[in-house]
Amino acid sequence: MIEVELPDGSKLEMEENSTVEDVAYKIGEGLGNDTKAGKINGELVAKEETVSDGDKIHIVTPSSEEYLEVLRHSAAHVFAQALKRIHPEAKLTIGPSTDEGFYYDVADVELEQEDLREIEEEMEKIIEEDLEIKRVDGMLRSKAQAFFSDNKYKREILEEEAAGGNRVTFYEQGEFKDLCKGPHVDSTGEIGGFKLLNIAGAYWRGDEENEMLTRVYGTAFADESDLDEFLELREEAQKRDHRKIGKEMNLFSIPEVTGPGLPLYHPNGQTVISELRGFVDNMNKDQGYDFVETPHLFRTELWKESGHYENYRDDMFLLEVGDEEYGLKPMNCPGHATIFKQQSWSYKDLPVRYAENGKVYRKEQRGELSGLSRVWSFTIDDAHLFVRPDQIKQEILQIMENIEKVLKTFNMEAEYFLATRPEKSVGSDEIWNKSEDALREVLEELDLEYGVEEGDGAFYGPKIDVAFEDALGREWDGPTVQLDFNMPERFDLTYTGENNEDQRPVMIHRALYGSYERFMMVLIEQFEGSFPTWLAPEQVRILPVSDDSLEYAREVKEKLDGFRVEVEDRSWTVGKKIQNAHDDKVPYMLIVGDDEEENRTVSVRDRFENEESDVPIEEFGTHLAEEVADKRLEPDFIE
Amino acid sequence: MIEVELPDGSKLEMEENSTVEDVAYKIGEGLGNDTKAGKINGELVAKEETVSDGDKIHIVTPSSEEYLEVLRHSAAHVFAQALKRIHPEAKLTIGPSTDEGFYYDVADVELEQEDLREIEEEMEKIIEEDLEIKRVDGMLRSKAQAFFSDNKYKREILEEEAAGGNRVTFYEQGEFKDLCKGPHVDSTGEIGGFKLLNIAGAYWRGDEENEMLTRVYGTAFADESDLDEFLELREEAQKRDHRKIGKEMNLFSIPEVTGPGLPLYHPNGQTVISELRGFVDNMNKDQGYDFVETPHLFRTELWKESGHYENYRDDMFLLEVGDEEYGLKPMNCPGHATIFKQQSWSYKDLPVRYAENGKVYRKEQRGELSGLSRVWSFTIDDAHLFVRPDQIKQEILQIMENIEKVLKTFNMEAEYFLATRPEKSVGSDEIWNKSEDALREVLEELDLEYGVEEGDGAFYGPKIDVAFEDALGREWDGPTVQLDFNMPERFDLTYTGENNEDQRPVMIHRALYGSYERFMMVLIEQFEGSFPTWLAPEQVRILPVSDDSLEYAREVKEKLDGFRVEVEDRSWTVGKKIQNAHDDKVPYMLIVGDDEEENRTVSVRDRFENEESDVPIEEFGTHLAEEVADKRLEPDFIE
Repeated sequence: MIEVELPDGSKLEMEENSTVEDVAYKIGEGLGNDTKAGKINGELVAKEETVSDGDKIHIVTPSSEEYLEVLRHSAAHVFAQALKRIHPEAKLTIGPSTDEGFYYDVADVELEQEDLREIEEEMEKIIEEDLEIKRVDGMLRSKAQAFFSDNKYKREILEEEAAGGNRVTFYEQGEFKDLCKGPHVDSTGEIGGFKLLNIAGAYWRGDEENEMLTRVYGTAFADESDLDEFLELREEAQKRDHRKIGKEMNLFSIPEVTGPGLPLYHPNGQTVISELRGFVDNMNKDQGYDFVETPHLFRTELWKESGHYENYRDDMFLLEVGDEEYGLKPMNCPGHATIFKQQSWSYKDLPVRYAENGKVYRKEQRGELSGLSRVWSFTIDDAHLFVRPDQIKQEILQIMENIEKVLKTFNMEAEYFLATRPEKSVGSDEIWNKSEDALREVLEELDLEYGVEEGDGAFYGPKIDVAFEDALGREWDGPTVQLDFNMPERFDLTYTGENNEDQRPVMIHRALYGSYERFMMVLIEQFEGSFPTWLAPEQVRILPVSDDSLEYAREVKEKLDGFRVEVEDRSWTVGKKIQNAHDDKVPYMLIVGDDEEENRTVSVRDRFENEESDVPIEEFGTHLAEEVADKRLEPDFIE
Repeated sequence: MIEVELPDGSKLEMEENSTVEDVAYKIGEGLGNDTKAGKINGELVAKEETVSDGDKIHIVTPSSEEYLEVLRHSAAHVFAQALKRIHPEAKLTIGPSTDEGFYYDVADVELEQEDLREIEEEMEKIIEEDLEIKRVDGMLRSKAQAFFSDNKYKREILEEEAAGGNRVTFYEQGEFKDLCKGPHVDSTGEIGGFKLLNIAGAYWRGDEENEMLTRVYGTAFADESDLDEFLELREEAQKRDHRKIGKEMNLFSIPEVTGPGLPLYHPNGQTVISELRGFVDNMNKDQGYDFVETPHLFRTELWKESGHYENYRDDMFLLEVGDEEYGLKPMNCPGHATIFKQQSWSYKDLPVRYAENGKVYRKEQRGELSGLSRVWSFTIDDAHLFVRPDQIKQEILQIMENIEKVLKTFNMEAEYFLATRPEKSVGSDEIWNKSEDALREVLEELDLEYGVEEGDGAFYGPKIDVAFEDALGREWDGPTVQLDFNMPERFDLTYTGENNEDQRPVMIHRALYGSYERFMMVLIEQFEGSFPTWLAPEQVRILPVSDDSLEYAREVKEKLDGFRVEVEDRSWTVGKKIQNAHDDKVPYMLIVGDDEEENRTVSVRDRFENEESDVPIEEFGTHLAEEVADKRLEPDFIE
């Protein structure tokens, strides 16, 4: 007899060579009947898999989270079966499930987006046929090799799979057979809804040296309604895609000739970035932060001193100058520590707070670069504080209040995580305890719910990470507050204490936005380009009803000096002018004609199509100034 | 007979083998007697040098510009003679004259600054001895080799000098002999005033692979009064040296560990830079410039497209990423042209003006780097305008007005140069003529005196360069306006003309400061760190007469919100507080005690030691706001 452990910690005695399904049946017949797959010590396996003494067993039924993964893997098989029915010459390679569905990489077949409909129809048939998906255990490796005599990819996988023994597992459904460890659902009919999404290229085994295969992405659900919801959200995401809106609104570009992951900000994008920058710059100025500026290029000596060279080297852009090595900065902290070190400090001078909107360079994999969300160069609204241990709490409190202010301004949902001391760490127990307590107290004083990630702090100090949610519920790394006991040691930073002896300051790394690039991306998608008035590249457009009113339109523009106002001077119909301003996502349109000119007024129209006529220019100007100063989320002149 | 040409173009017949001195005597006996040296075809030579048929001859007398160079070379010999008298073991290497005096590189002797006095005394003796400086022509190379048997440096020079023949020239004065082609003055007594300045290390032949020699710098003049003037100016320059003041005022640093030529701006320096930036940013904003931002790293494809790769490659920081080459930007223009190209433009949209405070990277020789005047990374207040040919003049006019405004704000003297079409150039006659005319008309309309540098324009267009003078009369490259007909071609930039056809815009490169780094350097030296109030890192310091007034001091600071105000909270005497504020070059001190607290006033003291007591805070605040807004050169609350 053997003993296995269930998720609630209870133990269950089983006969040797029992399967996952046997365990389920022993717990109860209902569960046994429902079993689709299992997890042995965390690994997803087929229900036919044998359990061993001491194994932790988890049963997967249609209501388990893992069921979708199993079902999507089966959907990948259905895709492969359909493809082979239509294109017998196609060679299958690998077809796993993913977070959003599944994909299958295939060779020797040319597919275009418009071919997917035909394959989908065939897949529908296979699902209607409700074919049983059968596991074929213990197939001889030689037999499998023969089966794949015309498919070098599967043979290559077989070589590796079979390295552990002479037998392999297949799954079959109808006429279709594939080398596969499973698990799968019981029959093709279990797939309630599916969709093939798009086609991309992918190298065999992800290696650029290998040939390019065709990757077909799809998704599948147990219920058709879940599929519909997914597709709706996906369409929404595509509509809001910051790359699409960024191009339409002329915010930024990442042209091929200038390089990947190196965004160029066009005037419209730069206006948004400048406003965002001004927001935190003003906060910094009000709170006694000092601004510094450091270059982008440094001798690698500095990165050796800071430890980045040892730990971060592969992500750095390095170059030789003469016989010395230099690196583009991946972080701003060592530069700030160097500035701090140029001066001698007394305990009375602390806290010293250096802020810099510092552009950093990190060499991400080219394949992972995407719009503004993953880039090679991005600007951090960075600050580094050099504080006495007794100042930690007060500084963290102020920083967290600032973060709250930023998140509130954009109406963003956020989650807070406190990451505590890991096993390997530098710094005394005293300072760790003091610091963790400070972070915890601040989170509690501010009444913020937070998760604790025990042992997940950096080796050099604990931190609070803030993840914000975008309009589609996706989470992004955002603001961060990190304590650092290590860098002051490495750079031998000191201040003279009250006792007249050298003391070690604690360093705090903090960013309110994190990366401007990522924050900008989230904003673009959240607002679908319809930025709050204070951020909008064009805040007001004046539309003369005819060319006769052009001069008055320019007068109104003059009166609104200090705001970003344009006059529409093309000889279009008013309808077309309004439509165009809507398309350009301008918060306010001011329509002016003879009446308005006579009364020195404007007719206000906002982007929600609210209208109010005969508004004195000054009244509108006063409101605009308030709306912008308050950083209101939406144009609200007309309630 | 041969014929030589004199500076006025006239010809003179001479016998063969005549010397420079013979030529002088033939012109006139007085000139002959005065002759110290000569120039043959532009090369400075001894008066004993033989002239050839067709040579252009220039006679050097004590009133010639070149005389100082000859005299300083003789002073270097006097130094060498004195050194050998005191340190017979010293080995002489080379000792040329320079723009500011002379130096001599010596080996096998250890010299400190304090040793120079002794050598100077010996030099004075040699000058008093008034030794004749005699030329010894045609010494056998073997004899010279023997003379320098213990000096490998001179032997190495001999090897090369004598490569052309078997005989070399020596000069001797008293017991001192040196290998030298001259020319020299006639006797040591001609040196009217001299001074040894400092000691530095220098590699033999300037090669880092070679041993380090000791270089002694000195200067010499025919008149002692010229020496005094030189030393005074030098002291002034050292006092104003931006590297010295930059360190004292904690403005910037260029630490060894972070790399040469890569300045780090400390909070005080960053404040000055920010104010300078704000000044032109506001001008740009008011005049309809759009702000853009481009990365520092670009694929070299871009630099190939722009032509920088071909012409500027050696000065670029290049690196490999995967199998592609990238370069740090040495200029901002290609990035701006790329942004312009992302959009389609109509003739009505022009001019388009992109501004960016763009940090560029240029790999200057390490030996040429110096403080902020020669750096690897510097920020240009750059703008690129894309204009129709008919808009050139109006845009240039506005730019020149802006330049005038900047120069006037800092009370700077400037010289203007118009550089016209060179032999090799791109662009039609029509556009060149139109452009040169526009530049000329603007200079004349603004009533600016200017020099014309015919044929000195860039191959891609004419330009106006502005050189400003610093406090010591030194000239620096400053603002620039360049027309460019080439880059729009290279990037195939177009706009749709009135005729509905594609037209080529003209590009204008312009900077009002040029490089912030260089401009900052000039400002630091011009103001000796005593910046105008609007630029001063600390504008006001409040000095409580005792700790009892500290609270009121802080209240006053609150009232001056928006300005850079500090409260002196150290328990010093008022005298010490005032002295310290003076040393820190703070424009205004506000002294507060019981009386001031009672009357809600301050006692104002400016950095010129003017004082006015019992000033209502608001009155001072109002003045301060005006002084800053007007960018006045000096604190002028107290007239």
